[in-house]
Amino acid sequence: MTDPEIRPGEKAVATPDGFDAQLWFIGRLRTPFATRADCPRQGDPEAGPVCRAEIDPRWGEALTGIEDCAELLLLYWMHGARRDLTLQHPHGRAEPVGTFALRSPVRPNPIAASQVRLIGREGCALLVRGLDCMDGTPLLDVKSALRRR
Amino acid sequence: MTDPEIRPGEKAVATPDGFDAQLWFIGRLRTPFATRADCPRQGDPEAGPVCRAEIDPRWGEALTGIEDCAELLLLYWMHGARRDLTLQHPHGRAEPVGTFALRSPVRPNPIAASQVRLIGREGCALLVRGLDCMDGTPLLDVKSALRRR
Repeated sequence: MTDPEIRPGEKAVATPDGFDAQLWFIGRLRTPFATRADCPRQGDPEAGPVCRAEIDPRWGEALTGIEDCAELLLLYWMHGARRDLTLQHPHGRAEPVGTFALRSPVRPNPIAASQVRLIGREGCALLVRGLDCMDGTPLLDVKSALRRR
Repeated sequence: MTDPEIRPGEKAVATPDGFDAQLWFIGRLRTPFATRADCPRQGDPEAGPVCRAEIDPRWGEALTGIEDCAELLLLYWMHGARRDLTLQHPHGRAEPVGTFALRSPVRPNPIAASQVRLIGREGCALLVRGLDCMDGTPLLDVKSALRRR
């Protein structure tokens, strides 16, 4: 799904020759959003649809006690997003903006983060509100939420 | 720095044979915390020390416009943390707890997330408050902060 197009003002750089670390997908996110166009701009943990975070049974025991977490931080992998843009020109912005000033999936390491409300658990699956990603998105991590300040 | 010890009640599982995705380190975090014992339990974006997020010049242009972000979400790599524990027994807890209910660096994908206050910028380095990690920790991502709810 890599998009070869670059909009005016956007900039791609040469990427490093090798990688530095490796990830396992620990499960998949099941959402009602079949295409990128279906995805909301940002998930809504109050009124958004209930989605499922399905954890690989290998890691199932790592969910022990998760019911005590009202909110969770989920990290997931934006597979298909190009990784070489330093400047991006989001729709609705007058000027290109640096990748690190945005939450776009297009970034050197396409890891997305969403804080979600935990609604329930069915075995190795968590029911959550607040996701904004495509159905089938690979899951990288589940952790208790960032504290509020 | 992998710790071979498992405390009573902790559990390790067999890890997958291969990896699913790869990361680049985009820079390093410079903090006053030389050892794991020096690290605070959680960073303080108000009163914590000013730390530096040094970005590889390859990605420097991706910082364009970052000054407009009062708060940033940083993702970084807990190099050295073991990745095979599903149950952990944190000090001060009566019972072992599942890895995904904790924010421990020990997890299948040892990616840490901290929301920090942006204090300033010096070229490819960001000055931030709120980090809790060891000096030299590899940086994975910088993005505008999660919204408050």
